[in-house]
Amino acid sequence: MKHDSISVGIIGLGRMGTPMARNLLKAGFPLTVWNRSRAPIEALAAEGARAAGSARQVAAASDVVITMLPDGPDVEAVLLGPDGVLDGVREAARPGLLIIDMSTISPAVTRRLHAEAASRGCRMLDAPVSGGDVGAQAGTLSIMAGGARADFDAAQPVLAAMGRTITYCGPPGSGQLVKACNQIMVAIVLAGVSESLMFAQRAGVAPDVMIPVLQGGLARTQVMELRGARMAAHEFTPGFTASLHRKDLRIVLETAREMGIALPFTRQVAEMLNRLVERGQGDLDNSALFTIVEEMSA
Amino acid sequence: MKHDSISVGIIGLGRMGTPMARNLLKAGFPLTVWNRSRAPIEALAAEGARAAGSARQVAAASDVVITMLPDGPDVEAVLLGPDGVLDGVREAARPGLLIIDMSTISPAVTRRLHAEAASRGCRMLDAPVSGGDVGAQAGTLSIMAGGARADFDAAQPVLAAMGRTITYCGPPGSGQLVKACNQIMVAIVLAGVSESLMFAQRAGVAPDVMIPVLQGGLARTQVMELRGARMAAHEFTPGFTASLHRKDLRIVLETAREMGIALPFTRQVAEMLNRLVERGQGDLDNSALFTIVEEMSA
Repeated sequence: MKHDSISVGIIGLGRMGTPMARNLLKAGFPLTVWNRSRAPIEALAAEGARAAGSARQVAAASDVVITMLPDGPDVEAVLLGPDGVLDGVREAARPGLLIIDMSTISPAVTRRLHAEAASRGCRMLDAPVSGGDVGAQAGTLSIMAGGARADFDAAQPVLAAMGRTITYCGPPGSGQLVKACNQIMVAIVLAGVSESLMFAQRAGVAPDVMIPVLQGGLARTQVMELRGARMAAHEFTPGFTASLHRKDLRIVLETAREMGIALPFTRQVAEMLNRLVERGQGDLDNSALFTIVEEMSA
Repeated sequence: MKHDSISVGIIGLGRMGTPMARNLLKAGFPLTVWNRSRAPIEALAAEGARAAGSARQVAAASDVVITMLPDGPDVEAVLLGPDGVLDGVREAARPGLLIIDMSTISPAVTRRLHAEAASRGCRMLDAPVSGGDVGAQAGTLSIMAGGARADFDAAQPVLAAMGRTITYCGPPGSGQLVKACNQIMVAIVLAGVSESLMFAQRAGVAPDVMIPVLQGGLARTQVMELRGARMAAHEFTPGFTASLHRKDLRIVLETAREMGIALPFTRQVAEMLNRLVERGQGDLDNSALFTIVEEMSA
């Protein structure tokens, strides 16, 4: 399939959505964009995107609509609300609009949205990402998708313009569930890096002595590799903010409660991220968790 | 320096000490061995080692004495006790016996032993390892050493026969401190792997879908790489036992208390390992921590 034969729309032009839109343009997709605030729409229009006036207009102009929004309620509003995507379906360019929600939202909400989309004759994938704004810019995101296998296959050329590792995870909601596992893991590894740095610091062992030893064996983690030295130096420029990680862990813990499972380590990291946000430091990188661990031993 | 010009002794011929002794023999060092029980001495004598009747006799026959024992009290008994290494110093082959304690013990105890050794005219390194029995057999241990730099340099040919990554960490105790950081990290990463596997399992996501996605990004850990699939399959053959990891974390937490620092995540893993041991499962691999996380959601 040639890329100029698939019209793509993207809704949500933030730190992630804007560079993803640029990569779609670069790949040759006719692209329609919309965002609540106007400035990023105009920036992308200057680069060749078509500016829409609403989510509904995006849907009317597109075969595939991508949403990249902060949280579940945002996605619900854009898909189901007035002047939303599902309102635009009857006017859509071709039947069977494919919605790809790349936001990180609750698996329960995404399942409800899959059902709503199906009831209006649309197809849907939940396809959250990891890799942050750096990955979004480089087009190297990891994308984990849930939905019908045929819809995943149809979405391949579009997803390939934005990501490198693109994994079909299973039925509706599976992308969000795997993303939840990812956020659990990153959260707890951050705790581990924080405690080992804390111990080394107080014991008088330099991070540049300790880190290479740990990275040479079973203790090796990608978080230590990418952030260990910066954490030790208290450099917390995001990256991925404490606020967003906290939001993701809220979703994880709600989902865990619905499943009847205890995640004591994840819960403790979530509480620490709450403290960071309450302190007004939610815009720091999530690795600022280290300062909370330090504070506990002050 | 030719290897046959350094006489080496090794005390403690368990799962780690025996394969380390074999690698010393293979490298051409004249080797004297001793162990509390007789069988492993005889096994190594059949392979070319000289059997000693006590730790004291090992010291008398050696330029370098290695200890590889379960815990601090064992090392104290072997070094300071009757018929121990320091008793044998005056009879030693050459002056300035170099003691290399490769056990994982408390940094405070190791500092005391360094001082005792110095007061008898001996040199000492604390040089705990990571890499487990597999690394001991392959001669690929990571070795982290504390003590005088000159003694570390002198020990290089001996250490190189047993390990691959050999790091000088700083003054007496530094090897144990870096090992403590390593055990903190492995403990908390095990908790992260356990919670993400737990979440995936209950959510109906197969480990072979989840694991590669996490390993492709920031969530990547060596514990997941080596043990994730086995944990999901409840295969807990050691490896490194829960009992030994619990012992190491007891040392970490005692040291942290002396330094006035809180390690809440490490403490929680230590409590879970206690439960495993109390259940009579201390001989399982430490990754059986996963079963405690599962039990909390049963």
